Amino acid sequence: MNNKRKIYAGGYFIDTSVYKPIRRPFDGLVIGEAGFAGEDELETAIQAALQTEGTMADLPVYKRHKILLDIVSGMEKKRELLAGLLAQEAGKPLRYAEGEVARAMQTFKVAAEESLRLPGEYLRLDWTPAGEAKEGWVKYFPVGTIAGISPFNFPLNLSVHKIAPAIAAGNPVILKPASQTPMTILELAGIIDQTELPKGSLSILPMDRQTGNKLVTDRRIKMLSFTGSPVVGWKMKQQAGMKKILLELGGNAGVLITGSADLDLAVAKCLIGGFAYSGQVCIHAQRLFVEKSVFNEFAEKFVAGVKQLKYGDPLDPDTEISVMIDEENAIRVEDWIQEAVNDGANILTGGKRKGTYIEPTVLTQTKAVMKVCSLEVFGPVVTLEPVPDFTTGIGRMNESEYGLQAGVFTNDFQQVNQAFNELQVGGVIINDVPTFRVDHMPYGGVKKSGSGREGLKYSIREMMEPKLLVKPIK
Amino acid sequence: MNNKRKIYAGGYFIDTSVYKPIRRPFDGLVIGEAGFAGEDELETAIQAALQTEGTMADLPVYKRHKILLDIVSGMEKKRELLAGLLAQEAGKPLRYAEGEVARAMQTFKVAAEESLRLPGEYLRLDWTPAGEAKEGWVKYFPVGTIAGISPFNFPLNLSVHKIAPAIAAGNPVILKPASQTPMTILELAGIIDQTELPKGSLSILPMDRQTGNKLVTDRRIKMLSFTGSPVVGWKMKQQAGMKKILLELGGNAGVLITGSADLDLAVAKCLIGGFAYSGQVCIHAQRLFVEKSVFNEFAEKFVAGVKQLKYGDPLDPDTEISVMIDEENAIRVEDWIQEAVNDGANILTGGKRKGTYIEPTVLTQTKAVMKVCSLEVFGPVVTLEPVPDFTTGIGRMNESEYGLQAGVFTNDFQQVNQAFNELQVGGVIINDVPTFRVDHMPYGGVKKSGSGREGLKYSIREMMEPKLLVKPIK
Amino acid sequence: MNNKRKIYAGGYFIDTSVYKPIRRPFDGLVIGEAGFAGEDELETAIQAALQTEGTMADLPVYKRHKILLDIVSGMEKKRELLAGLLAQEAGKPLRYAEGEVARAMQTFKVAAEESLRLPGEYLRLDWTPAGEAKEGWVKYFPVGTIAGISPFNFPLNLSVHKIAPAIAAGNPVILKPASQTPMTILELAGIIDQTELPKGSLSILPMDRQTGNKLVTDRRIKMLSFTGSPVVGWKMKQQAGMKKILLELGGNAGVLITGSADLDLAVAKCLIGGFAYSGQVCIHAQRLFVEKSVFNEFAEKFVAGVKQLKYGDPLDPDTEISVMIDEENAIRVEDWIQEAVNDGANILTGGKRKGTYIEPTVLTQTKAVMKVCSLEVFGPVVTLEPVPDFTTGIGRMNESEYGLQAGVFTNDFQQVNQAFNELQVGGVIINDVPTFRVDHMPYGGVKKSGSGREGLKYSIREMMEPKLLVKPIK
Amino acid sequence: MNNKRKIYAGGYFIDTSVYKPIRRPFDGLVIGEAGFAGEDELETAIQAALQTEGTMADLPVYKRHKILLDIVSGMEKKRELLAGLLAQEAGKPLRYAEGEVARAMQTFKVAAEESLRLPGEYLRLDWTPAGEAKEGWVKYFPVGTIAGISPFNFPLNLSVHKIAPAIAAGNPVILKPASQTPMTILELAGIIDQTELPKGSLSILPMDRQTGNKLVTDRRIKMLSFTGSPVVGWKMKQQAGMKKILLELGGNAGVLITGSADLDLAVAKCLIGGFAYSGQVCIHAQRLFVEKSVFNEFAEKFVAGVKQLKYGDPLDPDTEISVMIDEENAIRVEDWIQEAVNDGANILTGGKRKGTYIEPTVLTQTKAVMKVCSLEVFGPVVTLEPVPDFTTGIGRMNESEYGLQAGVFTNDFQQVNQAFNELQVGGVIINDVPTFRVDHMPYGGVKKSGSGREGLKYSIREMMEPKLLVKPIK
Repeated sequence: MNNKRKIYAGGYFIDTSVYKPIRRPFDGLVIGEAGFAGEDELETAIQAALQTEGTMADLPVYKRHKILLDIVSGMEKKRELLAGLLAQEAGKPLRYAEGEVARAMQTFKVAAEESLRLPGEYLRLDWTPAGEAKEGWVKYFPVGTIAGISPFNFPLNLSVHKIAPAIAAGNPVILKPASQTPMTILELAGIIDQTELPKGSLSILPMDRQTGNKLVTDRRIKMLSFTGSPVVGWKMKQQAGMKKILLELGGNAGVLITGSADLDLAVAKCLIGGFAYSGQVCIHAQRLFVEKSVFNEFAEKFVAGVKQLKYGDPLDPDTEISVMIDEENAIRVEDWIQEAVNDGANILTGGKRKGTYIEPTVLTQTKAVMKVCSLEVFGPVVTLEPVPDFTTGIGRMNESEYGLQAGVFTNDFQQVNQAFNELQVGGVIINDVPTFRVDHMPYGGVKKSGSGREGLKYSIREMMEPKLLVKPIK
Repeated sequence: MNNKRKIYAGGYFIDTSVYKPIRRPFDGLVIGEAGFAGEDELETAIQAALQTEGTMADLPVYKRHKILLDIVSGMEKKRELLAGLLAQEAGKPLRYAEGEVARAMQTFKVAAEESLRLPGEYLRLDWTPAGEAKEGWVKYFPVGTIAGISPFNFPLNLSVHKIAPAIAAGNPVILKPASQTPMTILELAGIIDQTELPKGSLSILPMDRQTGNKLVTDRRIKMLSFTGSPVVGWKMKQQAGMKKILLELGGNAGVLITGSADLDLAVAKCLIGGFAYSGQVCIHAQRLFVEKSVFNEFAEKFVAGVKQLKYGDPLDPDTEISVMIDEENAIRVEDWIQEAVNDGANILTGGKRKGTYIEPTVLTQTKAVMKVCSLEVFGPVVTLEPVPDFTTGIGRMNESEYGLQAGVFTNDFQQVNQAFNELQVGGVIINDVPTFRVDHMPYGGVKKSGSGREGLKYSIREMMEPKLLVKPIK
Repeated sequence: MNNKRKIYAGGYFIDTSVYKPIRRPFDGLVIGEAGFAGEDELETAIQAALQTEGTMADLPVYKRHKILLDIVSGMEKKRELLAGLLAQEAGKPLRYAEGEVARAMQTFKVAAEESLRLPGEYLRLDWTPAGEAKEGWVKYFPVGTIAGISPFNFPLNLSVHKIAPAIAAGNPVILKPASQTPMTILELAGIIDQTELPKGSLSILPMDRQTGNKLVTDRRIKMLSFTGSPVVGWKMKQQAGMKKILLELGGNAGVLITGSADLDLAVAKCLIGGFAYSGQVCIHAQRLFVEKSVFNEFAEKFVAGVKQLKYGDPLDPDTEISVMIDEENAIRVEDWIQEAVNDGANILTGGKRKGTYIEPTVLTQTKAVMKVCSLEVFGPVVTLEPVPDFTTGIGRMNESEYGLQAGVFTNDFQQVNQAFNELQVGGVIINDVPTFRVDHMPYGGVKKSGSGREGLKYSIREMMEPKLLVKPIK
Repeated sequence: MNNKRKIYAGGYFIDTSVYKPIRRPFDGLVIGEAGFAGEDELETAIQAALQTEGTMADLPVYKRHKILLDIVSGMEKKRELLAGLLAQEAGKPLRYAEGEVARAMQTFKVAAEESLRLPGEYLRLDWTPAGEAKEGWVKYFPVGTIAGISPFNFPLNLSVHKIAPAIAAGNPVILKPASQTPMTILELAGIIDQTELPKGSLSILPMDRQTGNKLVTDRRIKMLSFTGSPVVGWKMKQQAGMKKILLELGGNAGVLITGSADLDLAVAKCLIGGFAYSGQVCIHAQRLFVEKSVFNEFAEKFVAGVKQLKYGDPLDPDTEISVMIDEENAIRVEDWIQEAVNDGANILTGGKRKGTYIEPTVLTQTKAVMKVCSLEVFGPVVTLEPVPDFTTGIGRMNESEYGLQAGVFTNDFQQVNQAFNELQVGGVIINDVPTFRVDHMPYGGVKKSGSGREGLKYSIREMMEPKLLVKPIK
């Protein structure tokens, strides 16, 4: 198969001097090659973006709407291709790859609808005599060229969360996808290229980190939207100069299961939240806390469920769990499990590694300082601990440097209120896992987990700047 | 004492040919006389209002804000006087009369703050090529002269709910207070008269119903805001022609107490909700439904509490319950209790009448068709019935032609959701009685209980009309 | 041709005892027959609607969205058929009929998008100690069964403005189309019938006025949305009882052309605004006022333009102007022109009638009391008058019992402000005719022109009722 | 006079080892001494702030409202004292000092009102089957301890723009005032200390820059709100780590006066905008561009006005212009004027320095690269240049690295639109100078002028973090 994909720079597919083979993490098979951009191609993309800033800002919203929906139509025709590419390059079981394609389409649809609703405000200015006979109108204008940097774990949808709002807001955008997973998003580039999106307003450039760092430091770029690891993200913030920056980083999300919970629902949801895509998810349900009265019942059912998760090739529709993105990460997770066990943790199930595969693993008797608790494990590992009561559980959940989302299973109204008020996170999910996300909801973290919110309405607003008109009333 | 109060027409206190004595319902003592407007005075008020429409619409918001806060200051200086007048003319225990004065001041304060925040909207019009290069701004303009008609039970605050939003919105207003209780509001007229409110933009006119009906039918008046009985209100709607109409009518509010409730809290709240101002409150907690598992405990505590309510002169600070507004109404309530007993109801406590006083009464084994259940009792009567489960309770609450507010005592999250979704009312109050109201919240009913919402932000919006400006973007 | 269309009652096409022939106003040719509902069929429809109220209220918004977009897809496939039917039954030139089909599709699209955005509010309740530790959430719930009554002039899109927001809001709807023009909307019924809209939630029933009046008076129907004549509309308001009522009535919209205007633009727009669909448009540009400095130039160009309007069969794509809806109306318009001429008006062009055709007519030297000025002419007649200055022009525009929209051609900023503040209308259109409408903008009149606003977001809100949840913060 | 003021740390006035004399820039007279905090006192303040985070977050909004209004009452009683201190320590003419006190009171008033309106949002989550039966509520929670750093030019009101929104939002705040002007704000500390603001939630600490830098770098502080110079501000952004940062920096604001402008209004406004407080204002009207058709007339009137500005002691009520903050800055401005003259600029009036006084100066024939054009002059210097047409004028205005506000004098509607769309600033002021500000409007810059917006509603939102609750609908 000759699956060689060019970079998409300034509105054109361009040949570059560097191509890298892309392999299936499952078995190392090469599924194609992807071009990588160098400094020149990046400069081409930046120049093209700058030149389309005015065109994009002036683009009538019905055209933005149509472009975004035309992308959805284009994706609809290539659903299978996109899902297959994604499953293979990311090692993501097909069921989840298909889900991601559907979500990416939804992300574009929502962006289409939001493009019509760019915000504005009216305010009386005559609150004091100084403002007598004056009123104000606020409109939001696109900030200018956006840089997006996206990770390997949702190679399609997390990239789309940069591209779609930029188009809706009227901004050009340059996207750097993860180096491991550029194929699906370059396929999308071809789909977008067929729409009436003004040429030059989109570039998709696989790059090495050093080259890509210009997206962080270049002053002509007005905003950086980064999804990735906390360490990298916060460092970018320092280097970003005057540009706006939106950071969607990781976490070690907790779940609290109480005595009033529907346990079967909680088990079913935690199996997904804990092991979907081998836990390589920002809002992976990593730390489960269970009220002691129901701990044993929950633990038994949950471990039984984990043991039944079906391992296999990501392309097999029956596969529920497959490999990790690469062996380096699998070894890291293996080491963390070992560290925990050495320090007293018990393995309830799983724990072994085979190449890039880590068995779905449940640990108990862990300590908060262990890496599997305190850091983002980004692997198929879940800790399971009893808590004496609800308030203690909330405290354990908050005992983290991160704060993305949290799940709470309860039917107690006071507990729902307490969880919402006290959990130090961006989102509290009642009767579901922290892994819950629909693409139009505000999404983002506190503490080390990030800064700013995605979810189309929110990311669009981050990509715009308010401007006030002060005018006479009469 | 020479407590003779003139009507306030077109910005001036005017002598009229008719004065009526105002008596204390508690003992029939005359506390003063109030002027009553005839057709001529009403016409004077209407003319004055029409002439100030432009001035009011153009009044800078900082002046509206100052006027409204100056009224608060003026009331602050006369708190005791106002509360005393109110207690006497309405037969309202002083503690509640003082509470009403405080709330009326708060209503003006909230109106002051809302006056600064008159709404406006921005919208892109280029959703289709037909709107290309166009955008829209929406501003809200005052509708013109407002008529307010208010009832005896909150002679001050329910009148203020007409006056305050009208000023904030920039509308003149003509208020017809209840004939039994004009003294407090005419005292307020004197306070308002000392502010910089443009002369003519406010009239306060006690009138007989026939004279006052012109407020309903006159085409020069652009909106009618009525608080009173359902029968009268809905008839006004038919007669109101093209004018806007806001109806705040009555109800027979229900409370549902479940097994997960804090029973002591529920008892304490129901004593207030059931018997404050002898139940002469639109959101009087009239029908109590208690899950059978806790029915006996609740009933015992509640009846014990009712028996301890202290009866007395409304001016006595210790008085918790006093008389009804007049003997006619007391007799009506006595008849309704009798009808219920004749048809099988049991009196758990109370039930007797002595002049204008009806003892605080709790009935059980009632039927839905009895007047004490199906109509608005507007007296110190509460029905108390067990229900087998929550869903049945919700059904019983909804078994009413009215729908103002409802109270639900529960700590079950699913029940909170169910109550909010299913109760056919304007407001669902969790862990408190339906009698709960703060003056900035949206307040109003469905079914026969009314149309539209008060609460300053909401009533201000009802008193304004949106206007769209379509303009070129460039 | 056997073009016999059944009514659509309770989700099914039903045979009725009455069928009426539908004729082309252009030449009287019968294009088909339409069933007319009697009392029984109406009762069937009401029963079906009531039974689906719960289903509709609970319908997840993604299903509402899909249903609404599926209707758009269905219409896309039948664009030509719909436009042809519409052109013929309404006598509307094909270009405008096609435009109406496109707009009706857009109306459904916008409704789809708005269905996702049902409003809600958050409010702190602890503005006073009385609300301490409490907060409120407001959600909007569908009101219940909606009745829609729509006119002949936009038989498709004005009906869709009843149906689409009802579906988006989660309400069943019963539509009575105009008796002259039921064919297009019954064709639409077939399209909607193919979607997953719950059976029973839509009925489309041609009826005579007497039968249809039950939609106004029946208490089970919770809201009436009426588009039609002011006389009929305001009478309905009196008969409507407790139901909500939205009235979109007529007007005699004005245009003001100033010395700073782009005259060629003004002429081009006024030709459309004045004569599209023979002026049978609620926001027909009926009264043109021109600053005297540019009056002669404008008049000359405008009259020249009117003379070139191409008359013909509505199905002819070149036709710009065709017949009126029926001879009765054509005779009425002829009489009004004659009345004006008898009282001193001059005909600048047009003025003659031939069957159902009235020539496009421009009158000058009219007086405000003439019917062609003071009433809604709803025919191809425009009055053209000079005004000495802008402020006088605004006054003349406001000299009307109606107030739907107004157009102002100017480049003077102060004049734009003045027009927006002073024109007594629902919408002020700068540099375009009052006839401007896109379907998502707030649309509706003041004075005799109506009550409430359409435009999807606005009509959806009218079809919903707010409900407040008061809850503990903690 | 023994005017020795202690720092206010953690809710207490504390003696420190360092006191610095505060002098009148006008004549060098010492008006008192101010304590300066060292590392220990700062740590005390930080600890106190952290300990009150929970208390502040839980403070009922009616208490926040009362505290903020009590501060206003306290200031009312000390208006003269505050204005006198301010005039002397800042060298600000009394009329402007009094204005600033009034504005600071207004800032607290607006904060009081906004404290009641903390935002919240409702959203349906069932836009896709993945969100079926779920809905979301968003509330905003205070971020935690805020650091404020404020400049000398508005020592009171720009400090209050840090303190007031922090209290409204429920955050503790530590303020570092400018070292030259700590007296007025420490006087305010005494006023605030008398209210019920929880002890520890406010500290006001004069500090040297090195000590104060901990406010930028300390991770326990969750947000930094800085008003000051661009160079300092952007460097802080790099050092701020994960904390939120709001930057209100400087500019070189432009004004564009067109042929359709009211020239007398423009002259009067530009005299204020150009020379109020000797141009030491972030939105000082520094660069005037005048359409050539009216350039001579404007220039003549403007220069004549500048010549009449009355110089004197800031405490003299007649004084219109006084000294600069210190001689260092006066010399800098003198040098910039000289540089311009050397490079070809003409002085139309002024240009000389005498100690800390710089004459009000108007330059023409300047070049864009001169410091008086390209940098923030922050002194009584205005450049005045003709432009051939409006579009060129807009271009010249945008020829700046800054973008705070801009003023445009015109009555041309198209020009108003163009200015709003094209000017690269945070606020476009029509028919007034860029110096226009009322304290509730969104205020802030683009380009080098800053990041984020103040104006109470906006700064409060910056000081809060959204949190989403995902819950079952039923």
